[in-house]
Order: sequence, then structure tokens, then C-alpha cells
Amino acid sequence: MTLLAERTTTDAAADLEAAEVAVVPTGSTEQHGPALPLGMDHMAAQAFARSAADREDTVVLPTIPVGVSVHHRQFDGTLYVSAETFEQYVEETIASLAEHGVRKAVVVNGHGGNSGALRRAARTLRDEETAFAPPWNWWDSVEDVAADLFDEDGGHADAMESSLLWHIRDDLVQPDELEAAEAGASESWGESVHGAALGFDTIDFSESGAVGRPTQADPEKGEALFEAGADQLDALLDWLAAQPLEDCWARAHK
Amino acid sequence: MTLLAERTTTDAAADLEAAEVAVVPTGSTEQHGPALPLGMDHMAAQAFARSAADREDTVVLPTIPVGVSVHHRQFDGTLYVSAETFEQYVEETIASLAEHGVRKAVVVNGHGGNSGALRRAARTLRDEETAFAPPWNWWDSVEDVAADLFDEDGGHADAMESSLLWHIRDDLVQPDELEAAEAGASESWGESVHGAALGFDTIDFSESGAVGRPTQADPEKGEALFEAGADQLDALLDWLAAQPLEDCWARAHK
Amino acid sequence: MTLLAERTTTDAAADLEAAEVAVVPTGSTEQHGPALPLGMDHMAAQAFARSAADREDTVVLPTIPVGVSVHHRQFDGTLYVSAETFEQYVEETIASLAEHGVRKAVVVNGHGGNSGALRRAARTLRDEETAFAPPWNWWDSVEDVAADLFDEDGGHADAMESSLLWHIRDDLVQPDELEAAEAGASESWGESVHGAALGFDTIDFSESGAVGRPTQADPEKGEALFEAGADQLDALLDWLAAQPLEDCWARAHK
Amino acid sequence: MTLLAERTTTDAAADLEAAEVAVVPTGSTEQHGPALPLGMDHMAAQAFARSAADREDTVVLPTIPVGVSVHHRQFDGTLYVSAETFEQYVEETIASLAEHGVRKAVVVNGHGGNSGALRRAARTLRDEETAFAPPWNWWDSVEDVAADLFDEDGGHADAMESSLLWHIRDDLVQPDELEAAEAGASESWGESVHGAALGFDTIDFSESGAVGRPTQADPEKGEALFEAGADQLDALLDWLAAQPLEDCWARAHK
Amino acid sequence: MTLLAERTTTDAAADLEAAEVAVVPTGSTEQHGPALPLGMDHMAAQAFARSAADREDTVVLPTIPVGVSVHHRQFDGTLYVSAETFEQYVEETIASLAEHGVRKAVVVNGHGGNSGALRRAARTLRDEETAFAPPWNWWDSVEDVAADLFDEDGGHADAMESSLLWHIRDDLVQPDELEAAEAGASESWGESVHGAALGFDTIDFSESGAVGRPTQADPEKGEALFEAGADQLDALLDWLAAQPLEDCWARAHK
Amino acid sequence: MTLLAERTTTDAAADLEAAEVAVVPTGSTEQHGPALPLGMDHMAAQAFARSAADREDTVVLPTIPVGVSVHHRQFDGTLYVSAETFEQYVEETIASLAEHGVRKAVVVNGHGGNSGALRRAARTLRDEETAFAPPWNWWDSVEDVAADLFDEDGGHADAMESSLLWHIRDDLVQPDELEAAEAGASESWGESVHGAALGFDTIDFSESGAVGRPTQADPEKGEALFEAGADQLDALLDWLAAQPLEDCWARAHK
Repeated sequence: MTLLAERTTTDAAADLEAAEVAVVPTGSTEQHGPALPLGMDHMAAQAFARSAADREDTVVLPTIPVGVSVHHRQFDGTLYVSAETFEQYVEETIASLAEHGVRKAVVVNGHGGNSGALRRAARTLRDEETAFAPPWNWWDSVEDVAADLFDEDGGHADAMESSLLWHIRDDLVQPDELEAAEAGASESWGESVHGAALGFDTIDFSESGAVGRPTQADPEKGEALFEAGADQLDALLDWLAAQPLEDCWARAHK
Repeated sequence: MTLLAERTTTDAAADLEAAEVAVVPTGSTEQHGPALPLGMDHMAAQAFARSAADREDTVVLPTIPVGVSVHHRQFDGTLYVSAETFEQYVEETIASLAEHGVRKAVVVNGHGGNSGALRRAARTLRDEETAFAPPWNWWDSVEDVAADLFDEDGGHADAMESSLLWHIRDDLVQPDELEAAEAGASESWGESVHGAALGFDTIDFSESGAVGRPTQADPEKGEALFEAGADQLDALLDWLAAQPLEDCWARAHK
Repeated sequence: MTLLAERTTTDAAADLEAAEVAVVPTGSTEQHGPALPLGMDHMAAQAFARSAADREDTVVLPTIPVGVSVHHRQFDGTLYVSAETFEQYVEETIASLAEHGVRKAVVVNGHGGNSGALRRAARTLRDEETAFAPPWNWWDSVEDVAADLFDEDGGHADAMESSLLWHIRDDLVQPDELEAAEAGASESWGESVHGAALGFDTIDFSESGAVGRPTQADPEKGEALFEAGADQLDALLDWLAAQPLEDCWARAHK
Repeated sequence: MTLLAERTTTDAAADLEAAEVAVVPTGSTEQHGPALPLGMDHMAAQAFARSAADREDTVVLPTIPVGVSVHHRQFDGTLYVSAETFEQYVEETIASLAEHGVRKAVVVNGHGGNSGALRRAARTLRDEETAFAPPWNWWDSVEDVAADLFDEDGGHADAMESSLLWHIRDDLVQPDELEAAEAGASESWGESVHGAALGFDTIDFSESGAVGRPTQADPEKGEALFEAGADQLDALLDWLAAQPLEDCWARAHK
Repeated sequence: MTLLAERTTTDAAADLEAAEVAVVPTGSTEQHGPALPLGMDHMAAQAFARSAADREDTVVLPTIPVGVSVHHRQFDGTLYVSAETFEQYVEETIASLAEHGVRKAVVVNGHGGNSGALRRAARTLRDEETAFAPPWNWWDSVEDVAADLFDEDGGHADAMESSLLWHIRDDLVQPDELEAAEAGASESWGESVHGAALGFDTIDFSESGAVGRPTQADPEKGEALFEAGADQLDALLDWLAAQPLEDCWARAHK
Repeated sequence: MTLLAERTTTDAAADLEAAEVAVVPTGSTEQHGPALPLGMDHMAAQAFARSAADREDTVVLPTIPVGVSVHHRQFDGTLYVSAETFEQYVEETIASLAEHGVRKAVVVNGHGGNSGALRRAARTLRDEETAFAPPWNWWDSVEDVAADLFDEDGGHADAMESSLLWHIRDDLVQPDELEAAEAGASESWGESVHGAALGFDTIDFSESGAVGRPTQADPEKGEALFEAGADQLDALLDWLAAQPLEDCWARAHK
């Protein structure tokens, strides 16, 4: 398995020469209810990212572990940085990689709260023709699989996330707590009042910190999700590796 | 109809004393395909906002006309500012109003691209206990009505928007162009490749600039949408006016 | 009358192709004493801007309604953003227009407090050769006319402003309050102590919020001012339309 | 003469205990035509500031030598920083002084281009109740004297500035060049086209870099200006020393 | 071993209640010559940080893997962010932790280039009384041990770093390349010309990217370094745990 | 002696044409214990800078008097700006000079706290190929001389600084206070606890504000230091004047 950080600069020169794409795992360290560890999101991102580490045309960057999680701050252990700081941290990391010639990347993201910042970072990098680095949220890639496996409209520390982590780090799931997680969970994300999206913080609508039905989780479902997601990522990397760089840039005025 | 900008400072003193809430219309000036005017989004926001101008407990602010529309920049006439500048402009405007004692507001928003910035502005104002000012996207409040009226998975210059504008400014809709709008439209927003959301700019996936099925539009449907939305906004203002300010602030650590 | 926001992108393509110049109205929403509405400054800017809307070589942008008015914040209804935010908002709006090929503009400004920010925005746009967009303060263009009409050394909510608004929006002037405005007015702007300009806030030197002699106002004088100003703006647009773009940029080192 | 930088911290403790006010000289290093040195503005500020150094209630800070002079950049030797950087540099310097208990100051300014930034710095310091530090432009304090001495509508490297420098640093004035300065000078500052203030850079309207009639300068006139200005500054410091600090802060909402 | 990211929020509540101090590992991903992996610095920081994970009064945060390494950018594989972004990322992470009650921390740092930013972050956190979080550079704590073990004036990818990594990740050291590393190394950091510190980038003075004498490395020396450093860190945590928080804040004016 | 600020723009045109390098003196105004003036660091920088003023290939800029001294703020008279503001002030000043064709400079620095900011400014100017402007700390250039003259491990207001100032401004040294300075001094800079650098503020470890052994100072030693430093600076300027500009820029990727 080839992880950039484990290579010397000399070996990396060859890796980067051969590489068409990079994978940049991003997540968060934030409450995931009583059954899942705080690192859920960066662990998931890292696991998916490393599934690509055997590709000869891909380099995998270190995992960025703290993200945009201010909305979980009332729950113990949540760490966060501002959206702007996170955006800069990711954008500058990718820009520095681009100096070595790898200018296409997938940001493998494990945390929904990071999405806006990642979109803005990707836009800037693209508009300046530094790099093409779209974010890939693992859960978006397995929507169909999840719909078959679970009956929930989740969003956080739900059956989907619980299953996934059970597969990749079963030592860190506390199955006995899934009941408590669900008992205190909200059915869906946030709180809508006559069309206004309230629910600024998770604590505004969820007692346990979870959203969804975590008791539906099991590790086999997690394996199915992981395999499906890893396949999708692999296909995405194939696709991106084949894209000419000049086709990645923003289009000219109509 | 009471619009703050039309009042003297002396009269405004009484208005603000009586007011429980403010309404802040925000939109954009950006391409909406060949059938709708560039000002669609700020016109819609203004129309909804003004529907609240007869409420005695509500003051209506001037309309902020340019928003976060960089993704439409390849189409003629699109104006835009950065997300950060827009966020600051709205946040500071609301903070200045709060100095006069009105510290609850609804940001009546007509443009989806503004949403992230408006959420961040609302969070900051809330976390600093300056004001409670959640955004209200008009289309979110009429989802059910729209589902009955239209068969589309739209998102931009679609039947929903076209109908609404037809109702509020029928002089500015070009019915003859709805066919062209639809012919060049994409079915849904953006472009997903193995779970990655590509489609950074509208031009990446839509020829006409529209997304959805604008030919389904008519002004009666627009009236239905407008009435439903205005009712929702009215109910939201009732609800917000009744909220004690101290219940609006962020909750303490668990 | 051709206002950009009322045009479709398709029609705007032709408008922008034909256009030599743009007009960008900026103002404020701030106290103007007991006789004039808070929106005085953006209403004036909008009225002058729209006087140019029949020119075939000119596009008129939407009005930016909130400006640099912190110095009026102690008076009810005043809204404001920081000078930096206002500068960015205007500068980025003009830069986005320039992408469509119109790179000369006049910022028709109704509020003195905006001037510094507008000068800085214009300098940046010019130095980067993005656009040439000098501000035009309507009162500066009619100094001679005003000197004939009024005996005042005004500056805010004075006879000059009151007259102008009386002409363009007579429903919003409260003639009965002009006496009170003048009774509480200062004679001239600010407060000088041994050469130091004190008077940071209007409230430091004016009781009513006005500066000058508003009782001299009448709508005929307002019409004279408006006609004179509109003529000046028209002449300025003629002049600017005829300037080659390359003559607009900053000169090289001596 | 007591200059803060020449005192030890121990002695400064006593000086600052006794002090009611501080004097902060600011200027620029920028072209002043062929007859005056680049340091004209900071030299003038320093000279006026030091005229106050014998006051027992006053501490004099070091001179800040580079200011907001971008508009002179086409002329050799001009140095400049951005308005924002200059504003921060002055504001933070004054805030650091305030930590030692001296919270009233006069910014003795020698350069018109600094004025906007100094006003904003003073506003921030006042609004945050850190310090009250209005700028004092030496030329504003001697307007009447200058009107008697000179027949010019100057503004830069004119008879007024030339006379002053001749008095304070006669070794640095080149009398033989005053003719050339005037020959290439513009009559007044900038360039107005139908009410729009063009003339972004000095080079746009002045060949020699001067504005006004420098040949009217002589050192006796400079002495008269200096004495008058120093008297005004002395009176201002008397006035400011007597102001209770709580009267200096911004007033509450009306 | 207790790592915060591996704990649920519920368990973390107890951990944080019991904790006196936190450990925040920071490093970089940058060239370390032909014999050491790019991740050297964050791997070292992580190893030292985890040596504290068995302390009951200590929580260990996830490792921040990319730092201030612009000066290595000409060597393949180097990643970097700006000093300002890194400072913000670390500072905000620690501030978010402080919300859970742990307000003393040690930043266990593996990269010299991070030091300035970490000092500034620590100052801000201390001056605002958010947290007391001094950086601890592992090599500073073992200076005496290193002086006994090595005859070098190193600084980067030297015998000291090579030995340490050999001990903690022997699979990632390439002993055969230590000769090449040393052959292309400079003797000491940077380049001094008459007292001016030149050598902005490593490539300015080192061919291989190393500075020092890496051939002196061996894993036993690494073990000695690691044990000594871990002991120092343990003692530091003892000391910090015993410090009353109020003694950690900045002292008042003299 | 040729100081840029004392030259007219016309004369400066010739100076700048002839110049190969510039000298930019930077220092601070901050406590230096009971025996030395607050301006110690900018006075030293100015003295060294002016030693170069007779070189025909060198222009000397005005002295920047306030620097990064927050760590001395508890001692009376200390002035400071943030590291970021100082960095910008210096960087922009040098960039403005570069517009006149002089793109190599030495920042003659008198204050250790400025070093980080000066390094970052120099890096930015170099990476953007605006100017090559390395900082030169006078004490670094005379390390050997100082080692012969003094038996101290100083760092602030020590024998080295005291001697230097005694030589260049003997009217501002208070020899009687050197005992008190030393009695309250710390032996060396800061405070190390198990390898962590504590001692954020000078007051944390020094009673008098001094660090070192100031009683060893005398003016002859100061003369020796000054001569040695001035020689080093002269040699540095010779070296820099001879460097082709293209050799100064950052090197390309390996």
C-alpha cells in the first residue's frame, strides 16, 4: 500500500511521475452519539482513501482529522475549526501537491459539514487552474445500497455510519449503546418551521447526538457499504485519471 | 405598506419600537435562461418580503440584489460577489438593525447559491447573541404545493420559478422562450460521477441555463405558489414574533 | 427603460454587446432627519441612474441600498456595513459585470459616506485593469445650481437633498417636519477644534440629524437639481463612452 | 524636549503617569516635485509634534514615515503602503500606548492621503473605548493664515508646503527648482469631468508633481505658518487634556 | 491507550472530566532526504504524543499532518500550508477543546518550521485566556542526549531524526540511502553571508535535502532519544497538570 | 550622506538609477530596562543603516520605529503592532521601492522580535520576484566580536546592546542604572521547562526587563561592535550589489 507520507522524497518522485490522481482524505473529530467514536468521519475517509492505495496511478495523502463541526460543540469531545480555516488548509495542501505535477485529485470526505468548504476550495483551485479536486462524500456514492439496507432518513451517527464503522474498526463500536443512541435520536436532520431551516446546532433537535435509526446497523451491512463505496471511488479514479487536464478547467464565457 | 426605507427616522423609531421581527430580502442578479429576467431571484424575495409589510410587528428592509452567483458567470448579465463578501454584507446589515432593538429577523431568500453564506451569517449573529436571523428559502416552504403542480426535478429557471415570476411580474416573462429554455435545460441540478458532485458551473451541464421543465409554467400556478409561500412566511413570522429572545440563542454545553 | 435586472440573459447579451458603459447606483439607508425617508440616498442614486436607462449604450444595474453609515447609527432605522465590506461588494459586482465585456462604468452615488470606499474600489479595478469605474456624487455635479438656489453650507438632509427627494418621491417627504429638522440641525458638517476634525458621529453635532437649512426646500428646486444633475450624468456618459479603454488605465512610471 | 523613544522604561513610567495626552506624528515619503524632499510630509509632522515636546502633560511618539501614497507611485522615490496596512499600523501603535494609561492622543498628520485611514483608525479606537485619537492635519489648522499669505488653490508641494519646509529644514529646499515645479503644476487637485472626480494618480493631472503655486513660497511665510500651527496644536492639546475621558467616547443610541 | 478520537462522546465526557491536560501532535509532510519518509515529522510527533496516552490525566488529540514547509517545496512530495493557515488550524482546534473544560495543553511538535506559528497560536490562546498551550519540540528536550550521541550540527533529516524514526518506524527508514543523504547534505542549516541569514529554501544550500550527518544514525540511539524525550514530556505533563490555571495567564501591567 | 527622504524626486531619479541596493532600517520602541532608552532598537538600526549612506550604489530608507514587541507590553512605554501588520508594512514599503527599479535590499534590523515577520516578508517578496530583501540582524553579524568582549548569554538590554548605544547615543544611556538592570535581569532568554519554551512575556522571567549582564558595557566596546557590524554590512552590500537579480529568485522544482 502506497501512502505518500511513508515514501521518501526520492521514491515519491517516481510515484508522482506515475500518478494521474491524488486522494485527500478529510473528516472530523466530533460527537457521534454514545455508540460511535469521535473520529468516525476521518476514520471512514481514511479507510476509503486507503482502498485506493494499491492503484499505481494514485497517491494517497495523510488524513486531515479536524473539520467544520461547530454545530456539534455542545457534545463532549467535539473539535472544530472554522469553515474558512478548513477551506484554506485543504486548498493549500492540494495546491502544494500540484507543484509536483499531480493536478487532479479526489477529496474523500467523511463529514457533511465539510462539504461547503470543500466545494469552495475545489472551485478556487479549478478557477485558478491549479488543480481539479472535487469532493467525494462516501455516503452520496452508496445511496442506492443504503436505501436497500436501511429504513431511515438519517444523517448522523445513523445505521449507515454505524454499520460502516463496525466493518472498518469493529473495536470502536459499542453495540450496547445503539439503543440509547436511537432512543435519543431525531428522525431526520434539523428542524423546519414553515420552511425555515432552524436547528443550527445538533443539540437543538437531538438528545443523543444521533439522527436516524442506528439500531439497524450491523457489520455485514457495513461491509456491503464499504465495498460498494470503494468500487465507486475506484471507478471515479479511473474516470478522472482518463480526463485530460485541459477538460477539467472552467469553461469560457458563453 | 410599511417599508423601512420609506420611513423617516422619527417614524421608524415608533415602527421599531412596535416591531418584533424584521424581514430582509436577499436574491441575486443572474442568468435564468431565455425566458426569465436576470433579477428573478431578488424580485421573488422582494415580493414575498413585501407580503409581510402590512404586519404591524414587522419591518421590511431594502432588497439586497446581488448574491453568490459565480457559477452562472459564463452567461451574460450575471452579477456576483464572493460568498464571504455577501455573508458580511448581510450579517453587518442585520447587526446594524439590531442596534435599534429588533433582534429577530427572517432572511427571505430567493437564490439557492446564497444559502451557505446566509447560514453562516445567521450562525455568527446567533452565537454572538446579536440577532436571530434564520434564512427562509421560498421554494423550501412550498415543496408540497410544487410537487402537486409540477412534474420536474428542477432547481433553476424551472417551471416553479417561471410560474412564480409570471404571477408577480408578468411583464418580465417571455412565454415564447419557455420552449427554448426547456430544450436546452438539464433534467436536474449538477452532474454526479460515481458519487462525486461535479458540475461546478451551470454551463457544465445546461445549454440554456435552465434546469427543470419550464414549459409547465403558468401564472395561475405562480399565484398558488405565491399564496402558499406568503402564508408560510406569515406563519413563520407569527411563530418567531412569539419566541422569547432568550430561547433563540445557542444552547450551553451539554 | 432598460434595466439589466429586467432583461433575460439572452436579451442582455445584445444589450451588453451594444453597451459602452454601465451605471451602478449606490446609496444608503440611514437617518435623514424627521422630514426625509431613510432611503433618501439610494432613492436619489436610483433616480439619477434610471435617467440614463434610455441610452442605447448604457446598462443600468440594480441599486445597492445599504452603505457606509456607521456615523448615523444612534438614529433609528440607520443600517450600515463596514467600509471594507461595502468596497468589496461594489468592486466585485463591477468586476463580475466586466466579464461580460462592459468595462467602463459610472458609480452613481447618493451618499457621501460611501465616497472613500468607492474611490478605493475604483482604484483597484483600474490598477488591475479590470474596469474603469469612477464614482459620481450627484451633489458634486450640481454645485453651481445649488449655490444659486440655496443659502446653506449643508451636507445632510439639507435643503438640497430635501428638494431633490420632493421632486422624485413627493409622497415620502414630510414638509411639516422641515421646521423641526432645521431647528435641530447644525449649520455645517462636523465640528472643528483648533483644526482637528471631531464630530465622528452625526449625533455629536446635530440634534435632529440634519445639517443645513432644510426649510429652504421645495419641489421645483428639486426638479431643477434633478434636471441639471441628469444632464451632467448624460454628458459624463457621453464622454466616458467615447474614451478608448486603453486610455483609462493607470499610467506607467514616469 | 521629551520624546518617548529617548526615555527609559523607568523614566517613561513617570512621564506616562503625568501625561494627559500623546502626540503621534504620521506622514509619508513621496514625491513633492523638484524643489522639496520626499520626506516633506513626515518632516512637517515631526516638527509640529516636537513643538509639543516641552509640555509636561504630553508624550511624543516616534514618527511613522511611510503612508498612503499610492497615487504618487509613478514619481521616483515614492514609498507607500496600503490604506488598510497604514490604518492598522497606526491604530495598533496607539492601542499599545493606551495600555500604559494614556488614552487621549492627537495624530499630527502631514499627508492628506492618510486622512481616511486615520479617521477609520480613530473611529475604531473610540468605538471600542480604547483611546480617543483624532487626526490633526497641520494645513487645516492654518487655513486662514495661508489664505492671507498665498494666492493659490494648492494641495501638494505648493507654496504653503514649500514655505513650511523652508522654515523647518532650509537645507532641503531647492529654491532654484520652484519655477520648474510651478511650470509643471496643475492649478488645483485632481480633475473633474461633469462632476466625477477623476485624477486617480497625480501624474494624471500634474507634470511636475506639484499642485498650486510654489514660487510664492519663502521661509518667513513658513515661519508664520509654523508658529500659527504650533499654537493651534498647543491649544488643541490644552483642550484635549481637559476633556474627561468618558466624554470622549461615542454616544449611546438616541 | 486512550486517544480522544477513539472514544465516544459519552466516554469522552468522563475522560475530559478527569483530564488536566491535552496533547496535540503537529508535524509536517515534507522531504527528509533519500533515506527518511516524508511523514517523518508528524510520525515523530504522534509517537511522542501517544507515549502520554496512558496517563489518566491526559487526552491525546489526532495528529495534524501538514505544516509550514514551504521552504522544502522544490523537493518531491512536500506538502505545505501557509504559516497563517496552520496557526489558525491549530489555534481553533485547541480553542474547541477548551470548550469541554480542558484548558491546558502541550503541542507536541515534530517540525521546526511550525514553531513560529505555534508560538503565535499559544500567545493568542493565552492572552485571551482560552487555553495555555505551549509548544514542545521533541529535539529541544533531548539536546544533551543528542550531544552525547552525535557529532553533528544538524537540523534536518540528520542523524538525530534518522535514529528516532528508525526506532519508531524501522520499516520506513532506508539505511542504504544514508550515505547519499550525507553526501548531499549541508553541514548546518541555512547560509550566512556577513551576518545575513540567506538560505530561504532548503534547496539553496542542500543537494540531498538533509542537513547534518545522517550516517551516524542507528536504531539504538533512536531508542535512547525516544525514551529520553518521552520522559521529558511526561515530566512536563506532570508539571503542567499541577499548575493552577490562573497562574498560566499573562501577567498584568507592571 | 544620502538619505532617500532628504532627496527630491528629481534627484532621487538619479540616485535610484545608480543604486544597486537599498537599506531599510527597522526596529522597535520597547522597554530596555532602566538604563537604556525605549528607542534602542530603532536607533541601532538607523545608525547601522546610515553607515551605508555614503555608498554610491545604496539608498537608505526612513526608519520604521515600531515593531513586534507585544512580549514587552507590561513594561511602561512599550509600543507594538502585530506581527502581521509589521510584516505588511515592511513588505509593502519595499515593494513600492521596487517599482522604481531597486529590487535588492537589506533590512537592517535592530529587534529580534521582528525577525519572523521580516523572514516572511522577504520570502513573499522573493517568491513573487518583486524584490530580494533579506533581513540582517546587527548582533548576528558581530557574534565573534561579542564573544570576545562579553561574558554573557544575553539577549535583551544586555552588555552588548548597552555598549552599542553608549557608542552611538551616549546621551541616552544611564550608566548608574546598569547595576539595577543587571540585578533584576535573567541570565538568559525565556524559561525552559522540560524542553518546552515558556516565558511568553519578558515579565515572566525578568524583573528589570534586561537579560544578560549589562554592567559589562562600556562605550569602547560599543565602538568595536559598531565598527565590526558596519564593516560586515558594507561587505554584505558589496556582495549583494554584485549578485545578478536573476540569481536572487527562488529556485525551480528539483
